[in-house]
Amino acid sequence: MLKTIPLVALIRVEAVQPSLHDNTADLDRLKAALTESLPAQLRSCSVHIPFACIVEIAASFRAADFTGYVIVHYEHDHLVLVDFVAEPPKSLPVLALDLGSTHLEATLLDCLTGDTLARGAALNRQVTHGADILTRIHFAERKDEGGKGLALLQEAVIVSINGLLDELCQEAEVKAQDVQAVAVSGNTTMVHLLLGISPRHICREPYIPLVNAPDPFLAQEIGLKLHKQATVRVLPGRGSYFGGDLISGILATGLDQAEETCMLIDVGTNAEVVMGNSEWLIACAGAAGPALEGGVARMGMRAASGAVEHVAIDRNTWQLDWRSINETPPLGLCGSGLIDLVAELYLARIVDLRGKFQSTFPGQPAAQRRFVKEHLLEMGGEQVFLVVAAGEAGNAEPVVLSQLDLDAMMRSKAAMYAILVTLINQVGLEFSDLARIAVAGAFGKHIDPQQAITLGMLPDLPLTTFEPVGNSSLRGAEMILLDHTAFARSLEIARKITYIELNVNQEFMIRFSGSRFIPHTDPELFPSVPSFR
Amino acid sequence: MLKTIPLVALIRVEAVQPSLHDNTADLDRLKAALTESLPAQLRSCSVHIPFACIVEIAASFRAADFTGYVIVHYEHDHLVLVDFVAEPPKSLPVLALDLGSTHLEATLLDCLTGDTLARGAALNRQVTHGADILTRIHFAERKDEGGKGLALLQEAVIVSINGLLDELCQEAEVKAQDVQAVAVSGNTTMVHLLLGISPRHICREPYIPLVNAPDPFLAQEIGLKLHKQATVRVLPGRGSYFGGDLISGILATGLDQAEETCMLIDVGTNAEVVMGNSEWLIACAGAAGPALEGGVARMGMRAASGAVEHVAIDRNTWQLDWRSINETPPLGLCGSGLIDLVAELYLARIVDLRGKFQSTFPGQPAAQRRFVKEHLLEMGGEQVFLVVAAGEAGNAEPVVLSQLDLDAMMRSKAAMYAILVTLINQVGLEFSDLARIAVAGAFGKHIDPQQAITLGMLPDLPLTTFEPVGNSSLRGAEMILLDHTAFARSLEIARKITYIELNVNQEFMIRFSGSRFIPHTDPELFPSVPSFR
Repeated sequence: MLKTIPLVALIRVEAVQPSLHDNTADLDRLKAALTESLPAQLRSCSVHIPFACIVEIAASFRAADFTGYVIVHYEHDHLVLVDFVAEPPKSLPVLALDLGSTHLEATLLDCLTGDTLARGAALNRQVTHGADILTRIHFAERKDEGGKGLALLQEAVIVSINGLLDELCQEAEVKAQDVQAVAVSGNTTMVHLLLGISPRHICREPYIPLVNAPDPFLAQEIGLKLHKQATVRVLPGRGSYFGGDLISGILATGLDQAEETCMLIDVGTNAEVVMGNSEWLIACAGAAGPALEGGVARMGMRAASGAVEHVAIDRNTWQLDWRSINETPPLGLCGSGLIDLVAELYLARIVDLRGKFQSTFPGQPAAQRRFVKEHLLEMGGEQVFLVVAAGEAGNAEPVVLSQLDLDAMMRSKAAMYAILVTLINQVGLEFSDLARIAVAGAFGKHIDPQQAITLGMLPDLPLTTFEPVGNSSLRGAEMILLDHTAFARSLEIARKITYIELNVNQEFMIRFSGSRFIPHTDPELFPSVPSFR
Repeated sequence: MLKTIPLVALIRVEAVQPSLHDNTADLDRLKAALTESLPAQLRSCSVHIPFACIVEIAASFRAADFTGYVIVHYEHDHLVLVDFVAEPPKSLPVLALDLGSTHLEATLLDCLTGDTLARGAALNRQVTHGADILTRIHFAERKDEGGKGLALLQEAVIVSINGLLDELCQEAEVKAQDVQAVAVSGNTTMVHLLLGISPRHICREPYIPLVNAPDPFLAQEIGLKLHKQATVRVLPGRGSYFGGDLISGILATGLDQAEETCMLIDVGTNAEVVMGNSEWLIACAGAAGPALEGGVARMGMRAASGAVEHVAIDRNTWQLDWRSINETPPLGLCGSGLIDLVAELYLARIVDLRGKFQSTFPGQPAAQRRFVKEHLLEMGGEQVFLVVAAGEAGNAEPVVLSQLDLDAMMRSKAAMYAILVTLINQVGLEFSDLARIAVAGAFGKHIDPQQAITLGMLPDLPLTTFEPVGNSSLRGAEMILLDHTAFARSLEIARKITYIELNVNQEFMIRFSGSRFIPHTDPELFPSVPSFR
């Protein structure tokens, strides 16, 4: 059962029958009856009937003898009456969408009950026009190929969404034209491309988007095939590099309402970190992610089927153990696998505190030496660590870690920690002041916080501090739909958050250098991690 | 100079230049700058930018280096930002429209200054589908002639409005696509036809319109060719027979804000009467008009060129004098001419107190007898009074008054007075309690209140009580545009007015019978009028 009033609601109305003594017009009669039936919180809202709906609504209202159900959309202090039905529908479907640059994730929710009707994911077809954000921004400016690049990118994402919507509708046995609203969270560039507006200035100093907080608009205005009056609510962003997906995460994790100071970490292409409570919010973002997201590490890949997500080296038996997602034959390493691997290699003294492979060290045990001999190999002219042999791999290619991958990983982990320290210093707190650290996304779901601490990537706090929160971007979008007050709350979050630009931050650069050791230049910051100086 | 904040306003904005330290997006920057520049009364309004405008506005804002002027529309507690311009436009045109069943009257106003840019009238092309409201309601239901009757009627009025708009725009040297808003007042049926919605139930018991108070909508939704974001505000009606034109009149005459009780009389096809003050409003309407509007009296016509608007009989010299509108050769009698004529005939004792022609009476002077002989003639088998001889008339037809015309006139005047008495009795007041009687329209402009009193049509009050107020329906529509608070006020008027249905009112029927004498069954009600009993 829903405890909140959703964005879209079904309300039973019983109007007084018209008579010579009550000559109120049909629609005014309907509005008056609706106002009487509204829950107390909405009683002061005025009711608006869109011009495009008046004929249909009036006809249904008369046909049902002035008694039935109306569907209303909450819209910034007024209600929009979009439909009248004689019998209550089985569900009141709405769509929550996490608009990723490679994948879309979506939930079809029922505003009658708050239940999930269907959930799914789809490829963002924009990938055919460019894998990453920057390529797409440049593609958007192209005028060739019989169309404008921007229009092609918009079309690609709209087709992707309509396709995913159709799948979910089929699964839930509802019609797409009955879907009443959409809430979308995505990074700033993805939102620009969805709206068909130029992302040109996002990647050009001083990095100003065209819009951070678009006003709600009709789904049909961008070609989404839902109810004709369905509106789109886009989670507001805070800047070119701090998008609505993060604001959505803040909403979902309740950072903006927390009594104690908490933190939210979201690692995608960028690492985006927010800290705060009900009084204040501070955030920054930096390029900490690439090594963890599949872009940089040669064997890196997204957390999907075939990704090695967990690695363990038994330092008694010198057995290497790994586990891949969905237990399918391995194709590469995802972020958590990489973190596990490097942490285990460090603890096994096969990677030193500078993040370099070492084959020998003073007092090296014989078993360790044999293990190193089997796994630390020369391949294509460089030293690599063999995780999965070619025979066991999914594509007959061995899964290995090269020194180059290791270097990228070290930069990522250093950036991550530097971001966290910079942020906490900004407000004069210490990590131990944090009541909770929510870790979003696949990163949060798969990593072992202890291993990330071993690497000096996350601060050395009790493990219970860390909480995986899943796709908080999608969850925030769901909240926009299930709680009519949440959109205003998201705007308030965007308004009150302080964003630290790391590119021009001196402290970050200093902290970054200090973090390029395992676990850190200052091992006292990580008492739980063994030091091998 | 405007003393009010109009519905559409031009506001200068000067935004902070974007920098690395201020990464607010273009449109959010514009909104913030606008909010700072708003007049105090609007400071709490949120600002909405329609999706269809964002690309254009952002581009103009950048091109103008973040400084210029925005055009905003006031919309029920929020502002809609529809345009950004680098240089201030010369005017901010908006259209006020009085939607009559035969004629449209319109004013093109400038929201920058409050000035009238152009004013004009046009035929309502719906007349080709039926002269009166009832015919059009029936025509609307026709499905033949390759189209639906309703669609044809809507198209006819839209073409009429677009044509009139073009004329006014040409005269004012502005472009139609720069016209920012429309306010329309019209009777309930005319509003239904404008909106393209069925007026079917208006003329069927219990006479319920489809809508009394349509919410504002975009002009383009009904095919009006103005600014793409121009909205239409329709003055709300109170019922099938009490339309937005009357609510507009109440707004224009300020009845709803008057400290002393006042009255507004509007005679068109119906006589519509409102009485009240800032505390209460009461109204009724009845078929008092036909004889005065040209429909019933054979020689009757609208107050237009060639209509005899004034008649005098000199009872010393027994000369008949008349004056036609625009002094063109006479074609017929308009309402005021008819009233003048019958009052003069009564005073000259050529019409008796029952409203019948009399050629003789005891003690008749010789001069009067000669006059009667010249003017009271037999024509086509009936007795008529000759006003203008064929030789002087505009179409070689004499202008005459027949007994049938006179009977219709008597019914009209009786209905009028009965309406007024019923209304005043309803609230337990007397006519002498009225501080002011506003008389709207051509009727108010042309009639001589003394003559209407002589006939017993208007109450016997000091002549200064009566005030012609012109086209108050159009003036109310103008107010909607020039004062952003006026539309809410019109809704409040519609909400608070009490409407008396005369068709089911016993008192009215009794008063009607008592009023079928000149001046009245009870001559003591009219001390200023000579009685010839």
